[in-house]
Amino acid sequence: MKKIVIIGSGNVAAVLGRKFRAAGHTIIQVLSRNSMEASRLAYEWDTESANYLSLISQHGDVYVMAVSDHAIAELAKDLLLPDKVIAHTAASVNMDVLKDVSPHHGVFYPLQSLRKEMIFLPEIPVFTEGATPKARQVLLELASSIAGEETRPSTLDERIRLHVAAVVVNNFTNHLYQLAEEFCRKENLDFRLLWPLIEETATRVKEISPSKSQTGPAIRGDEETIQKHLALLDNHPQLKEVYTFFSLQIKRGEA
Amino acid sequence: MKKIVIIGSGNVAAVLGRKFRAAGHTIIQVLSRNSMEASRLAYEWDTESANYLSLISQHGDVYVMAVSDHAIAELAKDLLLPDKVIAHTAASVNMDVLKDVSPHHGVFYPLQSLRKEMIFLPEIPVFTEGATPKARQVLLELASSIAGEETRPSTLDERIRLHVAAVVVNNFTNHLYQLAEEFCRKENLDFRLLWPLIEETATRVKEISPSKSQTGPAIRGDEETIQKHLALLDNHPQLKEVYTFFSLQIKRGEA
Repeated sequence: MKKIVIIGSGNVAAVLGRKFRAAGHTIIQVLSRNSMEASRLAYEWDTESANYLSLISQHGDVYVMAVSDHAIAELAKDLLLPDKVIAHTAASVNMDVLKDVSPHHGVFYPLQSLRKEMIFLPEIPVFTEGATPKARQVLLELASSIAGEETRPSTLDERIRLHVAAVVVNNFTNHLYQLAEEFCRKENLDFRLLWPLIEETATRVKEISPSKSQTGPAIRGDEETIQKHLALLDNHPQLKEVYTFFSLQIKRGEA
Repeated sequence: MKKIVIIGSGNVAAVLGRKFRAAGHTIIQVLSRNSMEASRLAYEWDTESANYLSLISQHGDVYVMAVSDHAIAELAKDLLLPDKVIAHTAASVNMDVLKDVSPHHGVFYPLQSLRKEMIFLPEIPVFTEGATPKARQVLLELASSIAGEETRPSTLDERIRLHVAAVVVNNFTNHLYQLAEEFCRKENLDFRLLWPLIEETATRVKEISPSKSQTGPAIRGDEETIQKHLALLDNHPQLKEVYTFFSLQIKRGEA
């Protein structure tokens, strides 16, 4: 079991911290400029908080820097943790950004959408990279302890590609949900009645390839229904654009 | 408990039949031109099958016609079931199409994506409509028995709107999954590692409005990441179009 210092107090910091604790690790410190959030997490985890980098504990085994992409380099300038393993959590940032902090630097990228408010901790596949054998081993072990088999050594190049795919299935899908919710609100329909369908569509990918399970008017080439639907969307211009765009995309077939 | 005749042997017929049985109803006959599928379902439900409309049982309480939209009128021409309650399952078809079969005609529309192969029966909100008080009552009771509170009397107009929303959250979302899977295949990434993110994105709608949970480069206005991602999509022209389209849609905000 590891002694972990969490740098950051946002969504990723909060959920990773809980996952680490659930796996039996100890969070020995939460470090964040946001003193309220740091205190809150420290209280939850029965540990100490600090608000200045100069107060960082020297007793950790692993330092996990869960901050926004642009903040990583800035924090790295003021940190020196020789012999310690330190990793950031960003998909798209080169691990070299941490090279002057410690030779044993690396990346610990959780491929999941994390929110502080989560009641149930989701599965989190983790992709790790390390500059030294020690960093590689420690980060991979830490990842395995929370992600089991969904753990992979990875590279910057691969993480950026994973991030593209994540944007598609998370951000773009969520945008569709948002448009559907807005449509329901304006049309006096109860969006909650779509929840079971949303859930079924998502869980189905585990049973059958989405390329084999497509249904609906576009894939059937049912122009009559498509035109009927478009006529209903005159008061929903953004959704109408989406409907037109997808109907063409789906009819065209082959990705 | 009702004695039910199922007309049709496709996905909707198969899953509704199972739901009816699970709720304690008896399927007294499966009627379908597809004799192989009809026999298979009859065997599963320990009942009889028939392949000609002329052989339809006269002993049912409710007749559920789960066939494709265009087949409804055709079958209705050759059916006469006075005093029986009969309903089709199509969102977009007027209940009048059944008016010469029985005065007690109506609609039983399941708002869910149904597949024969389903191992676990999903929640299925059901929207009913009936031409007489008897039809309304029987269909609403039948719907409540399988859908609980997710049961609503509805109208053609409302069902068509629900169908539009269903197309958005089911067909369009599935298209995004398909493009992501294709991207992973070509880029040598394991699509299964995206499953937890897909599931989390879908289940989150129950906890927070999708309009409040959007994240990612587009909503942040992070042009640098967007351009980096687009540059990676030169070999994925269809996904590149989707990426460009959604980034604009999301940046524009307000639905």
